[in-house]
Amino acid sequence: MTRVFDRMLVAGVGLIGGSLALAAREAGLVGEIVGYGRSRENLAVARRRGLVDRIADAPGAAATADAIVLAAPVGASVALAEAFRPHARAGTVLTDVGSVKARVVADLEAAWRRVGPVVGGHPIAGSEASGAGAARVDLFRGRLCILTPTPATDTTALGQVRALWEGVGARVEEMAAAAHDDILARVSHAPHLVAYALVTAVADVRVDGRSVLDYAGSGFRDATRIAASRAELWRDIALANAAAIGPALAEFRAVLERLAALVAAGDAAGLEAVLAAAARLRSDLERSH
Amino acid sequence: MTRVFDRMLVAGVGLIGGSLALAAREAGLVGEIVGYGRSRENLAVARRRGLVDRIADAPGAAATADAIVLAAPVGASVALAEAFRPHARAGTVLTDVGSVKARVVADLEAAWRRVGPVVGGHPIAGSEASGAGAARVDLFRGRLCILTPTPATDTTALGQVRALWEGVGARVEEMAAAAHDDILARVSHAPHLVAYALVTAVADVRVDGRSVLDYAGSGFRDATRIAASRAELWRDIALANAAAIGPALAEFRAVLERLAALVAAGDAAGLEAVLAAAARLRSDLERSH
Repeated sequence: MTRVFDRMLVAGVGLIGGSLALAAREAGLVGEIVGYGRSRENLAVARRRGLVDRIADAPGAAATADAIVLAAPVGASVALAEAFRPHARAGTVLTDVGSVKARVVADLEAAWRRVGPVVGGHPIAGSEASGAGAARVDLFRGRLCILTPTPATDTTALGQVRALWEGVGARVEEMAAAAHDDILARVSHAPHLVAYALVTAVADVRVDGRSVLDYAGSGFRDATRIAASRAELWRDIALANAAAIGPALAEFRAVLERLAALVAAGDAAGLEAVLAAAARLRSDLERSH
Repeated sequence: MTRVFDRMLVAGVGLIGGSLALAAREAGLVGEIVGYGRSRENLAVARRRGLVDRIADAPGAAATADAIVLAAPVGASVALAEAFRPHARAGTVLTDVGSVKARVVADLEAAWRRVGPVVGGHPIAGSEASGAGAARVDLFRGRLCILTPTPATDTTALGQVRALWEGVGARVEEMAAAAHDDILARVSHAPHLVAYALVTAVADVRVDGRSVLDYAGSGFRDATRIAASRAELWRDIALANAAAIGPALAEFRAVLERLAALVAAGDAAGLEAVLAAAARLRSDLERSH
């Protein structure tokens, strides 16, 4: 595998950052990988598991990097870029893995304007697991990674970031940041809020003295698995992509109201038509993976 | 294991009926198990897999049974009981595995009044899989099975049905049918409708010519897995338990509206408080299983 970067700083060595670092190391895509983070405990796990070559907890670590990957929660990305800026050398590529792109990439481009190129990225490979302990070398294999170049994006840097993701096994697709945010609001951000709401709605409900959650089967656990995700992560994503999540939630609520009305009306044929179409689509989705 | 029934007819040899038959056979709980159903193809699978001793597709098969388990979709239970009634001998125990109890058990008691005892049951062990091919001997091991006796329930028959479920590894709990229906509306029926709505809401959505469903990750697939369940099954459940599902959906929608308002208002602290409480609860749920 051709080397893509000489020294890459990964800020946030959690599930995504740690898996990228590990896979890039194993594929020989980067000369040296430095793990950067606030939690010494997590960095120690990253070091012990061999996810990174070195660890650092001061922003001066940016000084020798030719690429920086922001893999902290979306809400921390811009502040991290600003912390690295005084130390970074000219030309350092800045990229991220955030689930929201338009606002974040615009803010990163502003923060990094006098430093080097910015490439927005988002590997669609999360899970409710988190931390360096959850990192896996195969996390991105066969998964999609969306890159969101802007008119300002340097094509050489874009090619490098593409090579990095393809090198760890991802399929790369480029699209506008706004399109990414509209799509992800519908298939990820709104569904996460729905899952959190499913849990919240039954949290304190008791029937005849029984806590209803004690009767949750595998279906409820599947449907709400993503509600075990870190709250501050999804708080940040929801707020950063509020403009697209609002309409996505409204669309979902309209469908649910329609289902509730069919149930209340006892409309067997109408209800079955909607459920059958959804079941078919959902089964197709299973087969396509 | 003590024998519970001499000859048990299982009407509907799918995931639940087939698993019960197989587990009861292996545990020696029943002398002979007859599989009854409409689909000759499915019955052939049941026979080939050894889920049942014999198969039958005429209701006269009820004549020699001392127990009948209705394991067809909820909407078919009462009609099945009525079909078996002219053939059944006095004292034959009738039980079911339906996800809705109050209305179904009342209807079964009416249909079976001059025949024998009725015991309502519901093993909480479904999945989106279906058919005799999906049956598993360990499906009920460690799972909860709720029995819903009424003032009319014969205590001997109740004890037999309990012994059957405990014999295949289930934990048995008794409660009123209305309580069961209120609980299941919240942790199963409403969440199923939510999952169907999640799929329906994005079914035809395209962004810049891209189908958003092509970008669904593992989170969306987890959250909507149960929407691959058979539509006619969930149509029947939704209609049979509409009285409890209405309020359950209303509670869910109120929570979701609250989340949407927090997102729209950019209320980071308020949003995090709700998400964090849900995440904690959901993580606890994982650990308790």
